[in-house]
Amino acid sequence: MSFINGAVLVLSGPSGAGKSSLIKKIEDEIGAYYFSISTTTRPMRKGETHGVEYYFVDKEEFKKDIEDDMFLEYALVHGNYYGTSLKPVKKALEEGKLVLFDIDVQGNNAITNRLGDITTSVFISPPTLSELKKRLYARATDSDEIINTRLQMAELEIQRVSEYDFLIINDTLDVAAKQLLKIAHTARLKKPLDQINDFVYTWKDLED
Amino acid sequence: MSFINGAVLVLSGPSGAGKSSLIKKIEDEIGAYYFSISTTTRPMRKGETHGVEYYFVDKEEFKKDIEDDMFLEYALVHGNYYGTSLKPVKKALEEGKLVLFDIDVQGNNAITNRLGDITTSVFISPPTLSELKKRLYARATDSDEIINTRLQMAELEIQRVSEYDFLIINDTLDVAAKQLLKIAHTARLKKPLDQINDFVYTWKDLED
Repeated sequence: MSFINGAVLVLSGPSGAGKSSLIKKIEDEIGAYYFSISTTTRPMRKGETHGVEYYFVDKEEFKKDIEDDMFLEYALVHGNYYGTSLKPVKKALEEGKLVLFDIDVQGNNAITNRLGDITTSVFISPPTLSELKKRLYARATDSDEIINTRLQMAELEIQRVSEYDFLIINDTLDVAAKQLLKIAHTARLKKPLDQINDFVYTWKDLED
Repeated sequence: MSFINGAVLVLSGPSGAGKSSLIKKIEDEIGAYYFSISTTTRPMRKGETHGVEYYFVDKEEFKKDIEDDMFLEYALVHGNYYGTSLKPVKKALEEGKLVLFDIDVQGNNAITNRLGDITTSVFISPPTLSELKKRLYARATDSDEIINTRLQMAELEIQRVSEYDFLIINDTLDVAAKQLLKIAHTARLKKPLDQINDFVYTWKDLED
């Protein structure tokens, strides 16, 4: 992608790691950013808004976008498509924004494959499994069954921390937020490879 | 290397790119750092101090260190050895310092191969070749012949910018210094792979 001045910051980590709290904590200082919203073909539920929880599209549009290579990544789950559409990401990048993804390890791989030159990835982890358990029970939004599934998923996810540029151990929210803010500011300094190549090729002939 | 809390920041770029000025500009804000000094077997010249321009050692010591794999990188030039010794780097890393290298593209490769998990690399470039020429002549420290060699080397070096994590175009010193400071602060957040693996392996059993 050419003529873009934005960059990408991928956040992964188990549910309960504190990703949302961290983003809320730093959003006033992070500068212009766009939080990536997934696209889905599943029907809109009561209380949901197009462009807030998801971009809701019909299957025809989704399939056309797949053919046109307009997804960073997608999956078919229980007969419904879910994916990250390139369109809004590209628009935000062209506007010079930092594009934030809250996405899993597979999603990080897909994004890094497509946009690796401008992508910084961060894994946010609770300090221990028992602390994660405590947080999930304290949140009291999920059933015991769902909490158990989340804990099992967390154990699998954390095995792949080394695939990320940074690991933030979210023990104290303030400390973790400061680390994330530093990373976000530096993430913006990543330049797309084609811009770097342009610079290199014209460097010799550029006039002051 | 285990039990280290430091990290590495590699700075490359042509002579005249402004590396020294940038480091001077940010040194009060960068936190604890160690500027890597090369080791050589060439005789000490008048006015030089051991541990300032170089670590001066005899050939026997240098060769023993090669055998003991104590160099990050080394070369034999006109019968004298030059290299980056691991010893002071390791000490600085253990003290939690940010280790700065002013080193060429080959050196960056060597360091990234050895310490890639904790290394951030930055290429600092003058905005144009003609600006570099202007700066080198303004500096008036080198002969025309040396300036020409430097300009030719710069053209070769800049072809390999894409091997670096970041490119800073040093057009305005203040802007470039702010960028470098951000990168330096974030560079410290890199964790060694063995520490990450320790965290992952013990995460499940750690007590709060």
